[in-house]
Amino acid sequence: MDDELRALLARLPEPDYTTAAAVGERAAQVLRPHRALARLDEVAVWLAGWQRTVRPRAQRPAAVVFVADHGVVSEGVSAYPAAVTAEMLRALRTGAATAAVMAREVGAHIEVVDVGVDRPTANLRHEPALTPDRFRESFAAGRGAVGGLDADLLVIGEMGIGNTTPAAAVSATLFGGPAEEWTGRGTGVDDATWARKVAVVDDARRRVGESSAPLEVLRQVGGADMAAMCGAFVEARLRSLPVILDGFVATAAAAPLEVVRPGALDHCLAGHCSGEPGHRLLLDKLGKPPLLDLGLRLGEGSGALAAVPLVRLAAACVTDVATFAEWGLEA
Amino acid sequence: MDDELRALLARLPEPDYTTAAAVGERAAQVLRPHRALARLDEVAVWLAGWQRTVRPRAQRPAAVVFVADHGVVSEGVSAYPAAVTAEMLRALRTGAATAAVMAREVGAHIEVVDVGVDRPTANLRHEPALTPDRFRESFAAGRGAVGGLDADLLVIGEMGIGNTTPAAAVSATLFGGPAEEWTGRGTGVDDATWARKVAVVDDARRRVGESSAPLEVLRQVGGADMAAMCGAFVEARLRSLPVILDGFVATAAAAPLEVVRPGALDHCLAGHCSGEPGHRLLLDKLGKPPLLDLGLRLGEGSGALAAVPLVRLAAACVTDVATFAEWGLEA
Repeated sequence: MDDELRALLARLPEPDYTTAAAVGERAAQVLRPHRALARLDEVAVWLAGWQRTVRPRAQRPAAVVFVADHGVVSEGVSAYPAAVTAEMLRALRTGAATAAVMAREVGAHIEVVDVGVDRPTANLRHEPALTPDRFRESFAAGRGAVGGLDADLLVIGEMGIGNTTPAAAVSATLFGGPAEEWTGRGTGVDDATWARKVAVVDDARRRVGESSAPLEVLRQVGGADMAAMCGAFVEARLRSLPVILDGFVATAAAAPLEVVRPGALDHCLAGHCSGEPGHRLLLDKLGKPPLLDLGLRLGEGSGALAAVPLVRLAAACVTDVATFAEWGLEA
Repeated sequence: MDDELRALLARLPEPDYTTAAAVGERAAQVLRPHRALARLDEVAVWLAGWQRTVRPRAQRPAAVVFVADHGVVSEGVSAYPAAVTAEMLRALRTGAATAAVMAREVGAHIEVVDVGVDRPTANLRHEPALTPDRFRESFAAGRGAVGGLDADLLVIGEMGIGNTTPAAAVSATLFGGPAEEWTGRGTGVDDATWARKVAVVDDARRRVGESSAPLEVLRQVGGADMAAMCGAFVEARLRSLPVILDGFVATAAAAPLEVVRPGALDHCLAGHCSGEPGHRLLLDKLGKPPLLDLGLRLGEGSGALAAVPLVRLAAACVTDVATFAEWGLEA
């Protein structure tokens, strides 16, 4: 790990525990039975801590979707050809793709960042996916994309044909366990393709070795989209900006940070659990119960975008509901 | 059961299977992997069938919240005094209560209907909660409230101190099983109060007998809010208006319809599973997997309101996302 990156991770801010506690207090005093909103009240407390305000809000949510190609597609691990990545980049940018429609519906600004379309990474089965320079470049692109935003809640997503393979490889290398358990059907591959995918994940892990440093694992068997997302998660934390985690690929891009420094993802809430079996496993490892569990397996930030209205409601239900005292009643 | 009610249930419309199938087809052709939105695509198909359009939308959601007092409160089954019902009626109407804030956030119209505040029903432990006249009056109020709406998606909710007791009594009588499994903590009662609640549910069921007709069960051991909700569910079905089910009390008010006529609740989607243990059991009996499972236990329509944005997203993600063909690609 670079010295620069090490220095960054050493100065991650903590949430404002005082505002978080104040919102927890208020949640216990508003016009409803104690803890009646259960998980939503917890979300409001989390949001308040990171937004550093006793009146948490999700008024300016933003989604950043990182798009990249993956050299490992040459192993035949996806149901779609690599050319689809470029088409989806265009569809995301013009508003025709699912995440763009979702962003519009939930009132989120969306930015789509090309970090390697038509510039695939190396084949992670046999060599490091990213050179050190490319890793740094991608990570910086992720940081830069978040740094330029005016947002109070962030979704970090991805699109890239083939990218559930690096997600499985990173997860399997970081956390161990059978490659079969980390490897899913992605966009819907058949049995033969799935078996190839498992073999690729196993070979990649064997090549790197489980003792590698977590961010080195991300460079070796991840991808440009994942490195960019990792940078985005770090930049969000540096800005105390709360993040909704999306699916398997986004969560796998975040996971190395938690392994390097436990608590590094405290600013991230699991928006959903996807239909990829590795995602459930990964959320378990990270101790992050999801808000939604609807079997979505799209990526693009879609599962996290679907959770934005819940976060918004959680905030409003503490901020805007009267307390018993304001209402002239005893609690 | 009245002849009039029997006649109503005999003429419940089915969904428009043609529009539902067309939306299912489109969902398979939009710019994402087949079935990548999983449950959300199913929701869009359901919505299209009941809205009878190939372009389903949730543009005019509405919530109707029925508020009533319950004679069974005299048994000491609630953590709150009955007077809180009237206060919450006022808070819901003036926008200070949780459901009112949620409705505003999700862009739903909200109507709060008094069907018996300060006019408690009889104590269901010892006598029929509602006279036949009061049952008819409440049921008609529910129908009337829905009949007056301009909405494309409906939330049916309730508020009434003590009303998880009738919900448990109705459920236990309809479906059998130990009263302990149907009886929860409601607004958060202690062990002694919970034990009293269980005894009340058991006595009520014994009094009525499990062989009673389902709507007679609702009259005997339900409440005015529940009878009104039952009427609201029927009226929504007659108008082919899709409904999001809220928590335990609302679902228990709907359940008799499904027992009388299987399929009668096909126009209803389970918005959430609440923290009341009886609700999970009831949703299982009805075969309705919930969209959300966040431990909410408030009522007021809150869990269903929290699911409104998901239904809206589900619709938009079929209606507004381009198909591969529209985008000039092969699927």
